Amino acid sequence: MKKTILLYILFLCSTLSYGQISDLNLMPWPQEIEIGKNKLVINAHFTIKINQKSSERIDLATTQFLRRLTDKTGVFLNNGFATSESKIENPTVEVNYTSIAKLKLYEDESYQLNVTKNKISITANTDIGVAHAFSTLFQLITNDANSYYIPEVSISDFPRFAWRGLMIDCSRHFMPIDVLKRNIDAMASVKMNIFHWHLTDDQGIRIESKIYPKLHKLGSDGLYYTQDQIKDLVQYASARGIHVLPEIDVPGHATAFVTAIPEISSIPGAYSIERNAGVFDPTLDPTNEKTYEILTNLFGEVTALFPFPYFHIGGDENEGKHWDESEHIQQFMKENGLKTNHDLQTYFNIRLQKILKKENKTLMGWDEIMTDEMPKDAMIHSWRGENEGFKEGGTQIKAAKLGFKTVLSNGYYIDRMQPASEHYLVDPLSTATLTLEEEKRIVGGEATMWSELITPLTIDSRIWPRTVAIAERFWSAKEVTDVNNMYERLNVVNNNLEYIGITHIRNKDVILRNISNYQDTDALEKLSNISEPLKVYSRNVNGIEYQMYSPFSLFADACTADASDTKIFNNLVSNYISKKDEASKDMLIDYFNSLKNIETELQKISNNAPLVKRVLPYANRVSKIASIFEVALTNKNMSKKQYGELIELLDKKEDPAINLDVELALTASLKKLATSF
Amino acid sequence: MKKTILLYILFLCSTLSYGQISDLNLMPWPQEIEIGKNKLVINAHFTIKINQKSSERIDLATTQFLRRLTDKTGVFLNNGFATSESKIENPTVEVNYTSIAKLKLYEDESYQLNVTKNKISITANTDIGVAHAFSTLFQLITNDANSYYIPEVSISDFPRFAWRGLMIDCSRHFMPIDVLKRNIDAMASVKMNIFHWHLTDDQGIRIESKIYPKLHKLGSDGLYYTQDQIKDLVQYASARGIHVLPEIDVPGHATAFVTAIPEISSIPGAYSIERNAGVFDPTLDPTNEKTYEILTNLFGEVTALFPFPYFHIGGDENEGKHWDESEHIQQFMKENGLKTNHDLQTYFNIRLQKILKKENKTLMGWDEIMTDEMPKDAMIHSWRGENEGFKEGGTQIKAAKLGFKTVLSNGYYIDRMQPASEHYLVDPLSTATLTLEEEKRIVGGEATMWSELITPLTIDSRIWPRTVAIAERFWSAKEVTDVNNMYERLNVVNNNLEYIGITHIRNKDVILRNISNYQDTDALEKLSNISEPLKVYSRNVNGIEYQMYSPFSLFADACTADASDTKIFNNLVSNYISKKDEASKDMLIDYFNSLKNIETELQKISNNAPLVKRVLPYANRVSKIASIFEVALTNKNMSKKQYGELIELLDKKEDPAINLDVELALTASLKKLATSF
Repeated sequence: MKKTILLYILFLCSTLSYGQISDLNLMPWPQEIEIGKNKLVINAHFTIKINQKSSERIDLATTQFLRRLTDKTGVFLNNGFATSESKIENPTVEVNYTSIAKLKLYEDESYQLNVTKNKISITANTDIGVAHAFSTLFQLITNDANSYYIPEVSISDFPRFAWRGLMIDCSRHFMPIDVLKRNIDAMASVKMNIFHWHLTDDQGIRIESKIYPKLHKLGSDGLYYTQDQIKDLVQYASARGIHVLPEIDVPGHATAFVTAIPEISSIPGAYSIERNAGVFDPTLDPTNEKTYEILTNLFGEVTALFPFPYFHIGGDENEGKHWDESEHIQQFMKENGLKTNHDLQTYFNIRLQKILKKENKTLMGWDEIMTDEMPKDAMIHSWRGENEGFKEGGTQIKAAKLGFKTVLSNGYYIDRMQPASEHYLVDPLSTATLTLEEEKRIVGGEATMWSELITPLTIDSRIWPRTVAIAERFWSAKEVTDVNNMYERLNVVNNNLEYIGITHIRNKDVILRNISNYQDTDALEKLSNISEPLKVYSRNVNGIEYQMYSPFSLFADACTADASDTKIFNNLVSNYISKKDEASKDMLIDYFNSLKNIETELQKISNNAPLVKRVLPYANRVSKIASIFEVALTNKNMSKKQYGELIELLDKKEDPAINLDVELALTASLKKLATSF
Repeated sequence: MKKTILLYILFLCSTLSYGQISDLNLMPWPQEIEIGKNKLVINAHFTIKINQKSSERIDLATTQFLRRLTDKTGVFLNNGFATSESKIENPTVEVNYTSIAKLKLYEDESYQLNVTKNKISITANTDIGVAHAFSTLFQLITNDANSYYIPEVSISDFPRFAWRGLMIDCSRHFMPIDVLKRNIDAMASVKMNIFHWHLTDDQGIRIESKIYPKLHKLGSDGLYYTQDQIKDLVQYASARGIHVLPEIDVPGHATAFVTAIPEISSIPGAYSIERNAGVFDPTLDPTNEKTYEILTNLFGEVTALFPFPYFHIGGDENEGKHWDESEHIQQFMKENGLKTNHDLQTYFNIRLQKILKKENKTLMGWDEIMTDEMPKDAMIHSWRGENEGFKEGGTQIKAAKLGFKTVLSNGYYIDRMQPASEHYLVDPLSTATLTLEEEKRIVGGEATMWSELITPLTIDSRIWPRTVAIAERFWSAKEVTDVNNMYERLNVVNNNLEYIGITHIRNKDVILRNISNYQDTDALEKLSNISEPLKVYSRNVNGIEYQMYSPFSLFADACTADASDTKIFNNLVSNYISKKDEASKDMLIDYFNSLKNIETELQKISNNAPLVKRVLPYANRVSKIASIFEVALTNKNMSKKQYGELIELLDKKEDPAINLDVELALTASLKKLATSF
């Protein structure tokens, strides 16, 4: 990894002194924290003792903590495991807890953590609280020139919201179990507690059905989770304090479903698994008793695998086109006084609710299920907000006011590839005025990772680190909203995710090596650090440019939201504009000089790398832009002609046919700089 | 990734023209191959058609092939799946095969592959042959300046040996299922067919026992495979044409076993899981009927999980110390006329053989089990050779002559961290004179990955790419032994392993980032490219420096055998010595100049990176060595004094207390160069 010149400048400016709360890189930020002046240096004698009988969660949390600590610090410990026996005298960490958590929704997750010069104490009511304390403790590990240490702190912590979720869509692109496991580890490391498993959609049924094996055999291209694998994952998550919420999305998003079982589709026909992205017509037939028979059996199978008391039935984006086209469905609606498709879907949902009630499950669905007739014990998953015409804070506010419990995802759609700050500033409680009772109905929030444009290679860099900021929103106090401070901490927590097994940094290099055909990747890396994938679904217009089997090993896939150089560059530009000092000017000239060379460097390798050729037009544009600025800064002047050329270059888009699909993240700052001459 | 200056030089010297067999980067090298002048360019219209009903293996092989092809080439395919229906007209690849393989040891794995300008045909007797053909086809993908293509070839291929194995020790360090899965994928990509799963040892029992749950509950620190996970892995391997051979190592290497069930240990006592590496005393009691009762039940449970007809009982390194110390065992030996510990172990083995026979399994064991009394239907796993006092080619020759079937691992111990060439030149048939019948008894070979010093983070870089060379030894013709040619192909196949999911390249960066504390890693990378971990068990003398929970995120863990710069450097030095030309001299001076700066570059980051401090003494030594050569080359002369200093520097070792544990891979060439002045 070559640190760019900007990051190097940043490093030179940073100080290494500690002792202030602002030096701590904790996320989510704890509810209460005080910092002292001492430090506990990590050495071979570091030990952990559990004062009670240990639990599976505590064994896991302590062993993981010790391995990660060892790997990070290089310290050879004398004792590699925590003990709950008395033989350790004078342990470094002493743990006290009361009970093994039941993993119910409002479980006690609080903990107290005290670090002094040579002693750490952890106290919690449940073993999940203990696990959270060890996540915090790992984030506290820092260093001076000679050693790693933990600063003296006193922390008292608990979550603001009970529901702190991450949804992963495993239908559009199948994600093998190990992808989910490492992401569950990362969730635990930032104190998230609900993994929402989107198991079915138009592009695939990903769950084995023993009663209807056609579902996974014909509906998955062979890519599905066996029931044994599902049990294993649920157990894995539980050991990390995480619930698993299954979603079987009905009656829409059902192409794969009716591919396997066409007899319950609204329009008869032979379907095949969808390969594009978008909203499609195939829909289950809510007037067919066979539909309920199959869903009763299937839900029975599924609920037996998931102890979590909620069950997500999807229910979103059913446009009802096939219902409109079906004579017998229209007839049924007339006979039953169902005026609209929405009424028909509510009829369907209420029947599902009864099926689920028999299984002791609470129905949860995307906010389309929220109609006047829907019983209030359904959980509303809010995904539509002001952009979709819901004024006053979106559907979660409406749900809370109507008396539904609700979870917010609007604002946390991480597949939109927006910066972390956008999500960070969305509060589940919005700014609406709610009664205390209404507020309580907003149970929390969920980040949603839809997978049209991601694969196992890239999913981590799409979820992380931005979801850390969202996790903080769900856990920390409402007042914790300083974006700059958030980004500073995120920089460090981002690196820590590597110890957890997240591949967001390493897999970027894999993609760049591929594009370069295993030549020098420096220029590609430099370019990727100032480029971001197109945002808000503009990468895949109408869902037809990328099929589910298209390449996702392209330049855009190596780029991420919050391109790493942007913030530092923006600060440098602001600084220069306000001061017009020589030092800032020279730094900017150096940087533009380095950007200017990208095109030439890429040309060197392009003769042996067909994929580099697709990047060259963009590199050419960036290099030209950099040249103009280099000259302008040197001359302290930019001519009208140059300015005109520059704006044209900045506003230009690459030919969509090459699927470059990135934008220059420096554009806003560059325009500001250009007008400052 | 910053390509070093040496690799850059290499690239400039390489040509991009194709059309010669020597340009193909195939491993294992096929039995018969012809190359033409045409090329089949990969574009959106690339399709695959199976002329018969497909099989699970073929579905997997074709889908994997298409995804990897797409990711590598960036081509957007119109059709993302192979089809066995007739609707594809004029398919690019046409597949014909006869039967679904039974996955028995001598299965037909042959295939024919023909590529012409616009057509590819694959013909095989079994679906495993088809899968092998697609592995070869992926390796054939190459490129010119503008596109990726497959050269015109005609290949007829089949394996030389039936047994082409890789053993992974999951006891010393537990390897999660996903680690095994990705390595099984890599095995399949180089046509290996046996995964030998070392499941128990002193440091842990890694298999769930439903009959004796104490085994995994007390013997594993919570790190074990559930029976469901094992079934899943066996199925995963079978879909890739790979057998899984389980090993339960008895009667020695039994510390974890007797920790869980002390009543069958040879000496009564309370044992605890071993944390060091080495050979330990705890041993099962072969005179206790309870031992056989437990092993009968346990073997019954295990054999039910593994369809492969062989079962490995270990049997190695039992020094019998506890047998000597036990009165009742000594008594038993007297009563039964067993003169030596070896006789007693044979008694034990023969009883196990009977137990296994009832389960329809053939007993396999390390070569210690080969005694006069041992029935000849046992399979001998040869691990001791001339170094252990076995003249004339080692124990596999002895076994073959005695009438045993045998598999060779001596020479394929990849944990010894020797270069690929060392293993490559070991032939399972040795140079011994054998009858045809004796030769046939040598069924093949196995690379062994013992895990004292590896973790999930580093295991891939310890297995790969060297095991590709071993795979070629097991598959290709005996005559394929050109080491330089092997290394040239290995360079490319090494990169291809990234598409298979192997993490050997990416995880090196993870370790370097950790050492640098997320600062610039260029200097560390440069240094690691000329450094190799200590070889032949000298890294962990007596097995006590590293416990199983020690850090394996150190500089030595980022370094690999066959350090990447060595070969190019060696060639450059040879070239210079023979020609003394200015061009070579200048290249060497440039290179030494770059090495000289390593220390200064590391010092820059060391103030914020405690782990870099451990590397500094070595970096200092390397920088000094480079300075001496830079001066000497410039002056075309090296004084006696300089020479003396140099040799002292080259022979110096770093303080073992800092666990640097690497050696300078350029040393031999540097000494040659020094004496050339």
